[in-house]
Amino acid sequence: MRLVKLDLDHAPYDILIARDLLTQVQHILPLLPQKRVAIVTNETVAPLYLPQLQVALEANGVQVQAIVLPDGEKYKTWETLNLIFDGLLGARAERKTTLIALGGGVIGDMTGFAAAVYQRGVPFIQIPTTLLAQVDSSVGGKTAINHPLGKNMIGSFYQPKLVLADLSTLDTLPPREFSAGLAEIIKYGLIDDLAFFEWLEANIDVLMARDTDALAHAVEHSCQNKARIVAADEKEHGQRALLNLGHTFGHAIEAGLGYGAWLHGEAVAAGMVLAALASKELGQISATDLERITALIAKAGLPTVSPALGAERYLDLMAQDKKVDAGKIKFILMRRLGESYIGELTVPVIQAALTAGCAAA
Amino acid sequence: MRLVKLDLDHAPYDILIARDLLTQVQHILPLLPQKRVAIVTNETVAPLYLPQLQVALEANGVQVQAIVLPDGEKYKTWETLNLIFDGLLGARAERKTTLIALGGGVIGDMTGFAAAVYQRGVPFIQIPTTLLAQVDSSVGGKTAINHPLGKNMIGSFYQPKLVLADLSTLDTLPPREFSAGLAEIIKYGLIDDLAFFEWLEANIDVLMARDTDALAHAVEHSCQNKARIVAADEKEHGQRALLNLGHTFGHAIEAGLGYGAWLHGEAVAAGMVLAALASKELGQISATDLERITALIAKAGLPTVSPALGAERYLDLMAQDKKVDAGKIKFILMRRLGESYIGELTVPVIQAALTAGCAAA
Ligand SMILES: NC(=O)c1ccc[n+]([C@@H]2O[C@H](COP(=O)([O-])OP(=O)(O)OC[C@H]3O[C@@H](n4cnc5c(N)ncnc54)[C@H](O)[C@@H]3O)[C@@H](O)[C@H]2O)c1
Ligand SMILES: NC(=O)c1ccc[n+]([C@@H]2O[C@H](COP(=O)([O-])OP(=O)(O)OC[C@H]3O[C@@H](n4cnc5c(N)ncnc54)[C@H](O)[C@@H]3O)[C@@H](O)[C@H]2O)c1
Ligand SMILES: [Zn+2]
Ligand SMILES: [Zn+2]
Repeated sequence: MRLVKLDLDHAPYDILIARDLLTQVQHILPLLPQKRVAIVTNETVAPLYLPQLQVALEANGVQVQAIVLPDGEKYKTWETLNLIFDGLLGARAERKTTLIALGGGVIGDMTGFAAAVYQRGVPFIQIPTTLLAQVDSSVGGKTAINHPLGKNMIGSFYQPKLVLADLSTLDTLPPREFSAGLAEIIKYGLIDDLAFFEWLEANIDVLMARDTDALAHAVEHSCQNKARIVAADEKEHGQRALLNLGHTFGHAIEAGLGYGAWLHGEAVAAGMVLAALASKELGQISATDLERITALIAKAGLPTVSPALGAERYLDLMAQDKKVDAGKIKFILMRRLGESYIGELTVPVIQAALTAGCAAA
Repeated sequence: MRLVKLDLDHAPYDILIARDLLTQVQHILPLLPQKRVAIVTNETVAPLYLPQLQVALEANGVQVQAIVLPDGEKYKTWETLNLIFDGLLGARAERKTTLIALGGGVIGDMTGFAAAVYQRGVPFIQIPTTLLAQVDSSVGGKTAINHPLGKNMIGSFYQPKLVLADLSTLDTLPPREFSAGLAEIIKYGLIDDLAFFEWLEANIDVLMARDTDALAHAVEHSCQNKARIVAADEKEHGQRALLNLGHTFGHAIEAGLGYGAWLHGEAVAAGMVLAALASKELGQISATDLERITALIAKAGLPTVSPALGAERYLDLMAQDKKVDAGKIKFILMRRLGESYIGELTVPVIQAALTAGCAAA
């Protein structure tokens, strides 16, 4: 078992990484202020993993309420969140009831937010079951729901008491979802960890084969890297923005194609290639660096060519996402391979990157 | 001007108390991270006080968005909260936009919660315009909305950057609302401040005449008392429960009569008399003490006799509100005049208090 320790908000907690963690409830039991939990999950994950967890908890005298939500980003709304509150209040759950999120980032974000605001805050445990949730959304304490006028617009910073990253749950993850998680993993290498990037280059094939040791290493390293960046900037005032590498372009791709056409990780992958192209345009990374980045992303089963939305449309979409000051947009760029920084791009450089990085119209 | 300093959540802030504060925006301006605010108010308060505040801010170059909600506790819901988010997102308000609550406790609680969760937290300023909000709801950082299955069930602990208690706004407060605020003020005397209780006895007539000096003293003292109790127990684990003096009975009255029939402060007033009767029953306060309490509450324009719901119904309602352990219910009781504690009552003592304190059926 691997262990990453987080200390945010003066509330340190552990991320445990291993196979078969789901039934090892000895990690959960000492954290419960009351032998009562509500497991929040969705219709896809419940049949796969809810019974094992529920039985293991009940065998230890824990009263378990299961709240099964519909599956999908489009349900990451107040209405669905309210199903959690309806369930908790209907069962008279008190402030000592612990909420357990069992699912991907959507379930984690919603359950975390529910825990943050139910009776002004109840304890919360994360059991992320997608690769993306294990390496990204379950780390750092951001929780949220969407609003019709914007993604993740309503939420809290709220830390869990424990994260159990059970690698066995990844066995059932569809290949596209698996690759989407790899995009965020590659991102950590590019932000500030060349050694990890090189490890990924050497191990991408075993990773794609979902080898346990390789996965454990990748998840542990990713959590450590994200934890380090987040701990230095918990409320997102500065350096945490590095985690948005590939995301400004990526969000434009997601919005431009219509949400759901590409997975978030896929859009981020293509977005990182665009960020690399722009950095090369600025003379900061070499053609070889660019090739290495593109090759790794391709081997991870991710797109390296962005959709042909047209430069105008990209610029419009990015201007909606970010502030544009005097014709410049903030981007995360690469100073060299394995080192990113918060910078700005002028419109001509963005256009050049798009010309090089988008499919022919 | 009077000043009470609060230091909660490592984010110290001031409560300023005086007439005509509304237009003294020099207190607000230095706190704005961006010259942009959204004032949240309601249809009753907006025509009375919004223009003055808005004009004063705009005269100082602050961009003001007004969000006017319907008036009433029944609108303290997610749907109304969402009107705030719709407004903010429609105007593309960012994380540096400050929310200003201009109104009573309902507006303060909702705006505070909106500020806590909009983009995971934006700055927040309270301008309470009811006596209850000035002495109670604006102090301590509790924010919330109601859920169909319970009051204040969804919320956050979130501190404002500043509270401006403008005593002039109380000029237009209806008499029943004014008296409701006095109930909470009397409560502070009974919790742990005999000197303040005696000051209230001596000054209740000038207070009822809304004399500025008397009001300033009462608001200042109440804020200090609440601040002291809250600072010792910010997240409500122990002593903060003293603030519920009169509230267990009071909630039963509110629920038993149907919410809205009695104002919260009226129910708390009658509830404090019941708590005094129970304490006398236990031999802890004298008949004279009881008379002094009842006389002050009556002079404040508040009910001293509780409605005849029947003891069974009271017990049922209180059991729904509180946990009942082995036939005992937690109550805030009086050890002596001006000193309360967290105790328990047996059913016979509750019945005796109800017999003495309720109207004839
Ligand atoms: N809080 C943060 O810091 C943060 C960071 C990144 C992303 N996010 C959020 O995370 C969400 C995306 O998370 P995601 O990629 O996990 O998506 P997701 O939660 O929608 O999961 C993807 C799909 O996989 C299914 N699934 C989950 N676990 C499975 C398993 N073990 N086997 C088979 N199927 C499984 C889900 O039901 C879903 O259909 C977005 O809403 C995003 O905003 C949050
Ligand atoms: N957060 C806390 O710690 C806390 C504590 C106590 C109460 N509360 C909450 O506060 C709410 C009650 O607050 P309230 O008593 O202020 O009720 P309220 O906000 O409903 O105000 C009472 C009425 O007075 C009107 N009003 C407000 N200011 C006025 C003015 N200056 N002139 C004329 N009319 C005015 C309002 O529009 C409303 O109709 C409840 O929702 C309660 O849950 C919160
Ligand atoms: Zn991402
Ligand atoms: Zn009250």
